[in-house]
Amino acid sequence: MNPQPAAFTNEDFAARTRRVADSAVEKGLAGVIVTPGPDLVWLTGYRPTAITERLTMLVLSPDNEPTLLVPILERPDAEAAEGAGSLSLVDWADGTDPYETASPLLRSDGAFGISDSAWAIHLLGLQQALPQSSYRSLTDCLPMMRAVKDDNELMRLTAAGSAADATYGEIVKRRFAGRLETEVAADLADLLREFGHEQVDFTVVGSGPNGANPHHEAGDRVIEPGDAVVLDFGGLRYGYGSDTTRTVCVGEPTAEIREVHEVVRQAQQASVDAVQPGVSCQDIDRAARKVITEAGYGEQFIHRTGHGIGLTTHEPPYMVEGEEQPLVPGMCFSVEPGIYLAGRFGVRIEDIVTVTADGGRRLNNTDHGLGFVE
Amino acid sequence: MNPQPAAFTNEDFAARTRRVADSAVEKGLAGVIVTPGPDLVWLTGYRPTAITERLTMLVLSPDNEPTLLVPILERPDAEAAEGAGSLSLVDWADGTDPYETASPLLRSDGAFGISDSAWAIHLLGLQQALPQSSYRSLTDCLPMMRAVKDDNELMRLTAAGSAADATYGEIVKRRFAGRLETEVAADLADLLREFGHEQVDFTVVGSGPNGANPHHEAGDRVIEPGDAVVLDFGGLRYGYGSDTTRTVCVGEPTAEIREVHEVVRQAQQASVDAVQPGVSCQDIDRAARKVITEAGYGEQFIHRTGHGIGLTTHEPPYMVEGEEQPLVPGMCFSVEPGIYLAGRFGVRIEDIVTVTADGGRRLNNTDHGLGFVE
Repeated sequence: MNPQPAAFTNEDFAARTRRVADSAVEKGLAGVIVTPGPDLVWLTGYRPTAITERLTMLVLSPDNEPTLLVPILERPDAEAAEGAGSLSLVDWADGTDPYETASPLLRSDGAFGISDSAWAIHLLGLQQALPQSSYRSLTDCLPMMRAVKDDNELMRLTAAGSAADATYGEIVKRRFAGRLETEVAADLADLLREFGHEQVDFTVVGSGPNGANPHHEAGDRVIEPGDAVVLDFGGLRYGYGSDTTRTVCVGEPTAEIREVHEVVRQAQQASVDAVQPGVSCQDIDRAARKVITEAGYGEQFIHRTGHGIGLTTHEPPYMVEGEEQPLVPGMCFSVEPGIYLAGRFGVRIEDIVTVTADGGRRLNNTDHGLGFVE
Repeated sequence: MNPQPAAFTNEDFAARTRRVADSAVEKGLAGVIVTPGPDLVWLTGYRPTAITERLTMLVLSPDNEPTLLVPILERPDAEAAEGAGSLSLVDWADGTDPYETASPLLRSDGAFGISDSAWAIHLLGLQQALPQSSYRSLTDCLPMMRAVKDDNELMRLTAAGSAADATYGEIVKRRFAGRLETEVAADLADLLREFGHEQVDFTVVGSGPNGANPHHEAGDRVIEPGDAVVLDFGGLRYGYGSDTTRTVCVGEPTAEIREVHEVVRQAQQASVDAVQPGVSCQDIDRAARKVITEAGYGEQFIHRTGHGIGLTTHEPPYMVEGEEQPLVPGMCFSVEPGIYLAGRFGVRIEDIVTVTADGGRRLNNTDHGLGFVE
């Protein structure tokens, strides 16, 4: 048994809010506005019961202490949040205008970063209350805010990766032929929980032609001998994400499945080999894409190579053409090239990789060869 | 056994999109932009696997057929949606600018309604791509878009309400004293599922002082004899919401609990009695608030009286001061006044009510008196 990661402390949260306020100044922003979601969890530990039309927002600026605006009836929950000790709380009541209450917390002509997932109704409310203010999404102005993980976060991501690996180790012992995709998917979910995940986010089982749809989940198709099956699964352990994909074959694969799988394996390895501090995200995408394109399957690799992972399973940095962000030690992201032959089968291989001073280190370490199941 | 509601048809979806496009014209809008969430489900039946940073949006305008913009890798899912038959699909690929792809679908100087919960990153992307365009939240410009339910929707809401009532009928037979709030909450969740809910959204068990926090969920407090306990629970059945609250007492209530409960009961009845087509939402709030204020507890009624319900458990219309929207037959909303005595106990009573030509009809019909449990 590995030890549980320590709880985040009030000091952890205070350090994060200071770091973000400082980064905002560097970017010429008057401050940062964070609405409920992973950014707010990371900065304050606060997870409102539900994300609703009622305005909740954290304001970080160089001039003031971090201030959390909450609906008055959610104030007790906010006060109980892990990082509440380093926050000033302001509340507003139903029937009053929350944007009026928010205005004094913001510089009226300031440029602000705002959470990507802030609701449009709130952004429009702020734009109307402060017509001279301007806004940029946090992905646009501070995309790497949560991207570099500290040791405690890395420990959680490593634990999540190990649990996902254990899940793969077990699922390949189960029967595939003659069962529904949804049955195998249910097994994956059970195994993820058994190996320590508190939340299962996705359990993709794409058999035969369904594997050629990268976002197919699992359906009522009966898995057949000879099928290639894409298994892509993950969730949260200790609050941090896992996400791994392996492709298996039910019985004997065709030469084509073997060939396509080997191209994807080499592409995935090429991207992992390319990971170094200072290398750009798009270069990680290009490394896999080059291998696949040279093998003649460029048109069948229809998505980016990867996405960051942490409190959520999809977050910056994105390994995609056009993303020039250089890699920094502590970043964690997926490397998941795939080839999709419409109507026939698909292959994808995915690991979470973290950047170290010496290069990429995989947090998923099960065999990368074509898996065999019965 | 009641019959299952019929599936929504392609014609249902087409009628809804036409109705919304027409309403947009009436409001002087160039069109309506709908992002994933309940509005999109209602208009198209489409529920993307996950709501992510990738832009998905439906554009409804008087000039064009309804057009759904999707990430290319989610296109197969979108094509499989219930209402896809009446949509034109447009896709965009990772590495390209989705707002550029979206621009030709919009009038460059048009005013558009946009989903409340559209992500800020997308609104900012559209504002930048079309600097002459302007946006209003759908709650601001078409708040009642989904508010008036058709017969099929009413059947589903009625079924959800009956299941919630059956849940209350069973929970009061269970032991409360000596058990954790979380244990009673787990019972509520099990019962909601047993009585046909496919999704449980909340199971509030607020015992003693926890009942005085309206958004307390359920904690590790041991319920004690003499406690007032607020039970507020609901979820989705056939895709439509339930939401009901009753307050029970463990053993013998104090005179004060009885008195406060009776005030809330009369307040709730007053609001239900006030329901008539043409009456404003704020008048429903005022009816309950008047009773509670006259009883001397006005300061302890710290939230609005109710919220609409349908595909979600919180949606327009809101029964709140300042909301002048007149009630229309087919609207469904909660009526849920409460009194919260900080540090001591709380009382709330909630029913879902639908507007008929003759007044309000409750979809929850369990006894409104103080419940007694052991």
